[in-house]
Amino acid sequence: MKATVLVRPKPGILDPQGEAVGSALGHLGFEVRDARVGKVIDLEVEATDAAAAKAQVEQMCERLLANPLIESYEVEIVGESAA
Amino acid sequence: MKATVLVRPKPGILDPQGEAVGSALGHLGFEVRDARVGKVIDLEVEATDAAAAKAQVEQMCERLLANPLIESYEVEIVGESAA
Repeated sequence: MKATVLVRPKPGILDPQGEAVGSALGHLGFEVRDARVGKVIDLEVEATDAAAAKAQVEQMCERLLANPLIESYEVEIVGESAA
Repeated sequence: MKATVLVRPKPGILDPQGEAVGSALGHLGFEVRDARVGKVIDLEVEATDAAAAKAQVEQMCERLLANPLIESYEVEIVGESAA
């Protein structure tokens, strides 16, 4: 099954990359506020159903993909592939 | 208006970060295939309607947020905020 994970800096956590993006967009003439940059991870896991896939990917987030102290994550199971 | 941009390496483009994530997950005992890592950018723009906001953010992608040669992007306008 295909999964998409969004990992974002938590509110209140300093995000230098987001600040750089916001300021660069400003220099290009765009008016933006609150730019924040995180990661999107797409992957494919073996699982019998979507709930099992989601549980497995949440484990991956806790153990590797996100730093739960400063990042929040969102897991979406996108589709089934010969489960 | 709030916008979310997903920037991903195009299919066929080498993604060393994705390979590192896939291999690290393998070492932790997870079975994953095709891990790919991209960016998620959240920002807020001034625009009169969602279509205008989307056009503006697509411009930002072309000019700064993505490298169209090797990355694809997806723009989603998430909500309105005192437009």
